[in-house]
Amino acid sequence: MKCTVCKDPAFIKIPRHNAAFCETHFHEHVLRQVSRTVKNYRMFENHGPILVGVSGGKDSMGAWKILSELGYHVIAVHINNGFGAYSRESEEKVRRFSDQQQLPVHVYTFKALMGCEFDEACRLSGKPPCSLCGTVKRYFLNRLALDHGCNTLATGHNLDDENAALFSNVLHWYIGYMFRQSPVLPAEKGMAARVKPLVMMTDREMQKFIEMHQIEAPKSVCPHSKGATSPVYKDTFNSLAARMPGIKAEFYFGFLRTFKDQLPLPEHRESEAEPVNRCPICGYKTIKPDKCFICDLKERIAAEKEAGKL
Amino acid sequence: MKCTVCKDPAFIKIPRHNAAFCETHFHEHVLRQVSRTVKNYRMFENHGPILVGVSGGKDSMGAWKILSELGYHVIAVHINNGFGAYSRESEEKVRRFSDQQQLPVHVYTFKALMGCEFDEACRLSGKPPCSLCGTVKRYFLNRLALDHGCNTLATGHNLDDENAALFSNVLHWYIGYMFRQSPVLPAEKGMAARVKPLVMMTDREMQKFIEMHQIEAPKSVCPHSKGATSPVYKDTFNSLAARMPGIKAEFYFGFLRTFKDQLPLPEHRESEAEPVNRCPICGYKTIKPDKCFICDLKERIAAEKEAGKL
Repeated sequence: MKCTVCKDPAFIKIPRHNAAFCETHFHEHVLRQVSRTVKNYRMFENHGPILVGVSGGKDSMGAWKILSELGYHVIAVHINNGFGAYSRESEEKVRRFSDQQQLPVHVYTFKALMGCEFDEACRLSGKPPCSLCGTVKRYFLNRLALDHGCNTLATGHNLDDENAALFSNVLHWYIGYMFRQSPVLPAEKGMAARVKPLVMMTDREMQKFIEMHQIEAPKSVCPHSKGATSPVYKDTFNSLAARMPGIKAEFYFGFLRTFKDQLPLPEHRESEAEPVNRCPICGYKTIKPDKCFICDLKERIAAEKEAGKL
Repeated sequence: MKCTVCKDPAFIKIPRHNAAFCETHFHEHVLRQVSRTVKNYRMFENHGPILVGVSGGKDSMGAWKILSELGYHVIAVHINNGFGAYSRESEEKVRRFSDQQQLPVHVYTFKALMGCEFDEACRLSGKPPCSLCGTVKRYFLNRLALDHGCNTLATGHNLDDENAALFSNVLHWYIGYMFRQSPVLPAEKGMAARVKPLVMMTDREMQKFIEMHQIEAPKSVCPHSKGATSPVYKDTFNSLAARMPGIKAEFYFGFLRTFKDQLPLPEHRESEAEPVNRCPICGYKTIKPDKCFICDLKERIAAEKEAGKL
């Protein structure tokens, strides 16, 4: 197997592009793909610094490096949830990468942001861990973006992640979520734009990319990941892609082109696609009629502390 | 494993219904499911005889038996495509079942209907075999339904078939086909209603049903089935269903409830969902501006014969 560009021995074969690349040309290919994604979806039209949420995993570390190399002013933020060894290792890998690449990172802990440990917040909110973690991260990454003067927040979601999310929404016909799914959600009052510059890259490509650059991702896995359905959906698409190499991109980008752009969302369902209320405390968009979920939870945490229960 | 109803040893376990049945109660369950489907989707509101297209496979043989047992006046029709041993065996199984159950069947050949052998028609039309077979069967089953005084045409499509078709349409976002997919298409001028009474039954349930009744389906497979994508999609859903027992029904019936009923098809795409032209020769609905595909092909076959080329 030879590199499509220079005919040197190939480091990776990419059947859906009918191509193979050596390390040098794979690196170029990845930068070109991300650059094209950024341009196609007008991700960074606002200029200014970009906040990148860095979990320590291959995708967010990759996004951090790629966007920095493409010349963007990246401000990296890591939130440590306090999930024992997994969180310690994640923070350590993030700090090591930061030192190695001379790219600064801001580290926050769940406890400092919310006022209590994750497990307590889980109990108080009644939410399952993955749901709470997602909600808290989305909220604080937005808040930290604004605090750091960034009007754009970039995350490391790749094509496999977006495919799995879309497939889950389609399997259950969560029409509202489907209309909300996009590689770019524009900025608005109190909300940074949310963009996914790796949406044309697969899990496997990102894995090979960080391996090639000796970027270390945590070896341990999140203690809450057991029983998650996302890997099932990813496996489904990996099996399909083995038979139909372009199917992941066809499903996801076809959805954006056809479903999202051409089907009108019926009026009575519009609120599902777009929360219209604003939290009276923090100004965050919410589907709740009053305070947003985070402000409400923080109040309850404060009250429990006041009552000596925490 | 015991029957959920009578506690006798179970013949089949059905995880999505959280149930198991002995032979007697499985038979009752199948009849109840089909009866419920017929009622929910108002499949036979027009009364009168129902034409059932019988290929010889487990589903159409099952539909023939079940609808007859439910008391409907069924007229069974088999079309022999002339695919060598496979077609001979299919016709033989259909005739044997007909004798055994004392249910009459009308047998037609592709050659008698179209005027030439299947391979010649394939060559002349330029269509792949599966596409030609589907088009010809849809056309003539409708025509034969009307000729036999039936305003309803029932086929053996089951939940796995419909899921696979829906999944294929969703993967490629064939929105027009999605809007056309339904367990019941109402009758209109020159068109019998098309209904799928087995849409709540899975492949496995139908297989067990015909085994239980010693109904023999052909052992050979269609010589054109190699490379078909439908089994890939069926495998996909079988893998998912092993983890999420209700997922097939959730995907398919959720689609009918949510997507089809709640999303309006944009005006500029309406012709995709519903062909609006009528063939000037036979009156069949067509997306073509003039003669329908079948009338056009029959004319070309006649011309080739006239010219001594066939």
